[in-house]
Amino acid sequence: MTPFRFLRACRREPVDRTPVWFMRQAGRFLPEYRALRERYPIMELIKTPELAVEVTLQPLRRFEVDAAIIFADILPVLESMGLEVAFVRGEGPAIREPVRTPGDVERLRVPAPEEIAPFTLEAIRLARRELEGRVPLIGFAGAPFTLASYAVEGGASRHYLHTKGLMYGEPKAWHDLMDKLSATVAAYLQAQARAGAQALQLFDSWAGALSPADYERFVLPYSRRVLEAARATAVPVIHFTTGTAGMLPHVAAAGGDVIGVDWRIALDEAWARVGHDRAIQGNLDPAVLLAPWPELRRQAGEILRRAGGRPGHIFNLGHGVLPQTPVENVQRLVDFVHGAEP
Amino acid sequence: MTPFRFLRACRREPVDRTPVWFMRQAGRFLPEYRALRERYPIMELIKTPELAVEVTLQPLRRFEVDAAIIFADILPVLESMGLEVAFVRGEGPAIREPVRTPGDVERLRVPAPEEIAPFTLEAIRLARRELEGRVPLIGFAGAPFTLASYAVEGGASRHYLHTKGLMYGEPKAWHDLMDKLSATVAAYLQAQARAGAQALQLFDSWAGALSPADYERFVLPYSRRVLEAARATAVPVIHFTTGTAGMLPHVAAAGGDVIGVDWRIALDEAWARVGHDRAIQGNLDPAVLLAPWPELRRQAGEILRRAGGRPGHIFNLGHGVLPQTPVENVQRLVDFVHGAEP
Repeated sequence: MTPFRFLRACRREPVDRTPVWFMRQAGRFLPEYRALRERYPIMELIKTPELAVEVTLQPLRRFEVDAAIIFADILPVLESMGLEVAFVRGEGPAIREPVRTPGDVERLRVPAPEEIAPFTLEAIRLARRELEGRVPLIGFAGAPFTLASYAVEGGASRHYLHTKGLMYGEPKAWHDLMDKLSATVAAYLQAQARAGAQALQLFDSWAGALSPADYERFVLPYSRRVLEAARATAVPVIHFTTGTAGMLPHVAAAGGDVIGVDWRIALDEAWARVGHDRAIQGNLDPAVLLAPWPELRRQAGEILRRAGGRPGHIFNLGHGVLPQTPVENVQRLVDFVHGAEP
Repeated sequence: MTPFRFLRACRREPVDRTPVWFMRQAGRFLPEYRALRERYPIMELIKTPELAVEVTLQPLRRFEVDAAIIFADILPVLESMGLEVAFVRGEGPAIREPVRTPGDVERLRVPAPEEIAPFTLEAIRLARRELEGRVPLIGFAGAPFTLASYAVEGGASRHYLHTKGLMYGEPKAWHDLMDKLSATVAAYLQAQARAGAQALQLFDSWAGALSPADYERFVLPYSRRVLEAARATAVPVIHFTTGTAGMLPHVAAAGGDVIGVDWRIALDEAWARVGHDRAIQGNLDPAVLLAPWPELRRQAGEILRRAGGRPGHIFNLGHGVLPQTPVENVQRLVDFVHGAEP
């Protein structure tokens, strides 16, 4: 029996207090992170295992969060498949030559597991040692659809027209692309578990761009393949999406011990749609972390009330911590969640 | 009894064929619109009634759509309240001095009905004459929340942090702002009906940024006030939102004879959540209009199948026509919807 309440909640076992951690808890809202970023470009932080571990540990020195998440990025997976990622300051990352044709898909490699972000695998090994069993360490990867969108659009997108264009116009190339991505992501998550990750989260942040029927036909089988491979490692697996309130049963059908939900649906309603045979993670609006404390406390209390003390709730935001978030609010929220009845 | 199948469907009366029209059917995907735009800035098209009528009629010369929608913009309402809107080419409109403080809210005027976009009211009168009863004419306005977001952020936004900051941090100012906006929008929609609009659509395109609880507390009462005022004119009212699959019952509770839904939820599921005592409008992904015809036909057919021939379905997209849309696909889709069993 694990003593970690985060891992126990993933398995819907009773806990003494509701576990809490935050997506992007290692990141720009922390002054000590910003200080590091003044000295190193982001990809140097990610690709230097010692620095990635330092960033991973930063939030743990301040907050009693119940899990660490390895500081890493979803795009090195695409690099390992042969794409070139360029970081333009102030604009975010971009793919230098986006995948637009069947020939582009053809040229993508499916790398050996040890070739995929080896620096992150090494950071996981180091972080496990540094953590000394204090809290569990979460590994993660981008889901095939979110990675495909990045690869095809070349960066963030509003309407995903190139991605949907490939899906509808060149379905064979689309399925080949998703096949290669899911094989790569599955191997990568398994390698993270071997390196020591004690839970794995699959981020499909952009799945909400799709209709339920398109998700089912063009995405679900590939997410399922990845989630099944991840679960085969025996560590709990979190399946996170945003904007999918209209297709949570599909998201749950793809798999995951824990389903992560955003704030666009009430937690109890989301859990009912997902099914109570899964744990649930969420679902505070990250913007509420910028609110005055009474409002923040009220909304966090409402989420705990809707979780109803049912085993299997992990408190988190509905998406990542925003850079403008006051550190003090995060501190108070962690204490509040731990102080409330589970 | 009205002979117009669009108006009949709004009232859930039986129709001979499923009515169809498109948000942004008068717009950039039409070469004749782009030709006009080469000669006139967009606000000149909107603020010159004869030109606005010309743009309104353009799609009707090509397609057998079942409704016209007046060519107008949601921002002149904010101008009539005392804000200055600047159009920067290629970047979209921006509010020169966004509403950020209680004092800023205080300074906003509630204009008399005839002061709100009088050019649009005149365009409605002219368009009714030109249409000669061919199809009904829809008037519209932005909903209080979407207008508030524009006024507070100053333009489009990713996280709505200023808007939510005002909501959570200065709730009195927020409610004052929504009070002024809803009074103005209500008067504007009523003026449009008096000018001849035969249906009214309220666009709350950004409501999906909110949690259901925040929508209920900070938005719903104001949308309800507007929708009730609009319904008092006796013309049918369409309430349109996007990204709200997790709170459709709240959207329906705010009001509207017809609820417009995006593509992030299956039509039959959306209708069940809205309640079958309302008509429903939607819900094709606008990106599918760029797909090869067999895929487009398949997805349109699936929507009609899910509508199940129940009276009260108006075929439309889940959001506006994209500028890259092939004109031919729109033509074929209209014919397909009209050819299918209702």
